[in-house]
Amino acid sequence: MKNIKQYIESNKDRFLEELFGLLRIPSISSETAHKEDMYKAAEYWKQSILNAGADKAQIMETDGNPVTFGEKIIDPKLPTVLVYAHMDVMPVDPIDLWKSPPFEPEIREGKIYARGADDDKGQGFMHAKAFEYMVKTNQLPCNVKFIIEGEEEIGSPNLRKFMEAHKDLLKADVILVSDTGMIAPDIPSITTGLRGLSYMEVELTGPNKDLHSGLFGGAVANPANVLTKLLASLTDDDGKITVKGFYDDVIDVSIEERTEMAKAPFNESEYKKALDVDELCGEKGYSTNERTGIRPSLDINGIWGGYTGEGAKTVIPSKAYAKISMRLVPNQNNVKISRLFEEHFKAIAPNTVKVKVTALHGGQGYVSPIDIPAYQAAEKAYTDVFGKKPVPVRSGGSIPIISTFENVLGIKSILMGFGLESNAIHSPNENNPLEMFYKGIETIPLFYKYYTELMKK
Amino acid sequence: MKNIKQYIESNKDRFLEELFGLLRIPSISSETAHKEDMYKAAEYWKQSILNAGADKAQIMETDGNPVTFGEKIIDPKLPTVLVYAHMDVMPVDPIDLWKSPPFEPEIREGKIYARGADDDKGQGFMHAKAFEYMVKTNQLPCNVKFIIEGEEEIGSPNLRKFMEAHKDLLKADVILVSDTGMIAPDIPSITTGLRGLSYMEVELTGPNKDLHSGLFGGAVANPANVLTKLLASLTDDDGKITVKGFYDDVIDVSIEERTEMAKAPFNESEYKKALDVDELCGEKGYSTNERTGIRPSLDINGIWGGYTGEGAKTVIPSKAYAKISMRLVPNQNNVKISRLFEEHFKAIAPNTVKVKVTALHGGQGYVSPIDIPAYQAAEKAYTDVFGKKPVPVRSGGSIPIISTFENVLGIKSILMGFGLESNAIHSPNENNPLEMFYKGIETIPLFYKYYTELMKK
Repeated sequence: MKNIKQYIESNKDRFLEELFGLLRIPSISSETAHKEDMYKAAEYWKQSILNAGADKAQIMETDGNPVTFGEKIIDPKLPTVLVYAHMDVMPVDPIDLWKSPPFEPEIREGKIYARGADDDKGQGFMHAKAFEYMVKTNQLPCNVKFIIEGEEEIGSPNLRKFMEAHKDLLKADVILVSDTGMIAPDIPSITTGLRGLSYMEVELTGPNKDLHSGLFGGAVANPANVLTKLLASLTDDDGKITVKGFYDDVIDVSIEERTEMAKAPFNESEYKKALDVDELCGEKGYSTNERTGIRPSLDINGIWGGYTGEGAKTVIPSKAYAKISMRLVPNQNNVKISRLFEEHFKAIAPNTVKVKVTALHGGQGYVSPIDIPAYQAAEKAYTDVFGKKPVPVRSGGSIPIISTFENVLGIKSILMGFGLESNAIHSPNENNPLEMFYKGIETIPLFYKYYTELMKK
Repeated sequence: MKNIKQYIESNKDRFLEELFGLLRIPSISSETAHKEDMYKAAEYWKQSILNAGADKAQIMETDGNPVTFGEKIIDPKLPTVLVYAHMDVMPVDPIDLWKSPPFEPEIREGKIYARGADDDKGQGFMHAKAFEYMVKTNQLPCNVKFIIEGEEEIGSPNLRKFMEAHKDLLKADVILVSDTGMIAPDIPSITTGLRGLSYMEVELTGPNKDLHSGLFGGAVANPANVLTKLLASLTDDDGKITVKGFYDDVIDVSIEERTEMAKAPFNESEYKKALDVDELCGEKGYSTNERTGIRPSLDINGIWGGYTGEGAKTVIPSKAYAKISMRLVPNQNNVKISRLFEEHFKAIAPNTVKVKVTALHGGQGYVSPIDIPAYQAAEKAYTDVFGKKPVPVRSGGSIPIISTFENVLGIKSILMGFGLESNAIHSPNENNPLEMFYKGIETIPLFYKYYTELMKK
């Protein structure tokens, strides 16, 4: 593609100003108070796509938050790329750890700091700008569609139904997604596998009111004590998950494939240093990358109960809660796992407490082949920009909608991620290096070029 | 004593109005934001004691919250009773479970509802009004001193030093305290034993920032997961506490004494019904009353970490916390237990997390003899008012300062409590039946009468 670097250089201040406008919208999908912000974000995306050169763009309702759809069809006989991104972001707690307010983007030391700077406003917006470049310079080689959803961070509960109702509208040859990461700025990689997710909440009720721990302590089950025992029992000393039937559908990855994967660069001491931990841990018999890439996991994402303020309060809480998520590997069905979890948790709970288990959200895992034109086009695009052939990697994260796209629309996705581990997505001080933002915009048009060429053969 | 019932009847509206004034002050000692309220409460108590007829009353500084001291010395040769109460109250969380605001006292169905209605403003204020009656009707038979402190709910961290500095001022023959309960309105009881307390806070740090549970889940220790394992291990399947050395100083109560205690009325099915639990639990081999009265216990009073808001957030928290308290029996030293806990907890923590352990507060247990004049005077006073001889009981609660009084001042305490289990102290909707408030005021002057008579013999 001609002059892409120059185009970025001439327009970079405007690109940033436009991205900042999107980042300023607190579109937190898990908090109902932000419902209106979802519409603001949808409208912002609609205008961005139109301004970039789409034939049309519109906000479409779902049973939940709205979706922005847009397209530019230059020739129905040419291939069509469907770009997927999400406009919603994670909550910002713990807010006091942010160095600058999460919805007031600012640049410090060459990085954009804001909630969504990477996930997925920053990465999604690269596509708007790459598309603008191709349209404005008359270099768009194929048709493009955009679907920007507003519920990815809560598991896309309404997008399957939307897809089913709009199969024709969403028809495409490949789905292009930038919502994953690369190993390092100088080690490009393409995610070829994603884990699935089953996210649960449990509520334990002991006595019907908070009790004085002196008067009742020792004689009545404390739901917080019971909760720790139940949660502690969900993993064993080997780091295996004890939920009955949990591993039934896990397919072991072959030694050959594990040997291949082990070639990806990984420096354990740097990894530990970056996290400031003295020791790593996980399932016995697997390496760190295998533990996140090809093996399931179980994490307590939140736990609370009783008095959590300053000082001491001698109380036996009436209730105690936890949010627990399990990352799943391909072939594990998240609906089945959620059911197994609920059955198991209720079975192990003692009669001294009442138990409520709720499945909050979930999704299937995904594996992408590396021998299809779309993967090869992505590989060439990265190689051109980063000077190195990208490594195919299995990521521990989940984008549940990716497997749904394949199931409902029959379309494979290519995960062209540009995020770095240090971008702190889902955490305080989420950020995105300016360099990666611009390199993403530079890489994407090359994908279109190579993909169209390969499809024409 | 003459005309006490009539005196209460004629003044009951004023008594309540005066108590409500005290209840309206949000004197929460564990929250530094309420520092000024502690001074308001101290001033309110000073005026109350003076108005009731004290020779003098004053606010005295400590290294923490102030103390109100007052006295009326009618004859140095007569016995002196030191009344102890506390002006501070517990926090009010969870605030949304209160039917009326905690610091806007109101009467519903014959009960006063407010934080502190029982513990210990309601019970403490009975002494002010009983004292007023004796002074105004010229029936005060002995000398009276008042010490009202402002840090009982946080373990009276500064009162020992205050006592040591003011031994002469606090000199007395007996300490009279109303900060405990009775078995039921028709089953009077006097608390003869209190458990000690060791209250700890633990902080676990895993990675140096919150992490995405997909990208890192399974490979890095989640401090919330680790915390549940550590806390779960602190008690075993028999309900015994596993902290190394914990039971070393516990003196087993004799079978004879346990047989005597077992005669106290107790209805397990009503107890369970009142708490709405299907099953009780606790240390194997002991009854419910023994579990709270003569055996130590360990409770998680608060636990928190990660995302606790609405919906789902896929985060591995950087930190997880818990507040844990252990109720101790006489002869267990709370300082030693806090140290054993810290050593044990650090020893069992894996290298994958960093651990911080803080002792928040604590106190010794206490046993009161039943063959001293003060106990016998209290017994007679209850018998007159309630028509039944009170049962001596060991309570599970802790008033750490009681053992300190004995150690520093060499004075025994009599725990003339009038609280009921249904008063919900430390919980939402704390209350105190009007009937018990008036009966307390009626009982206290009789204690003074009988005590002075017995001491003269």
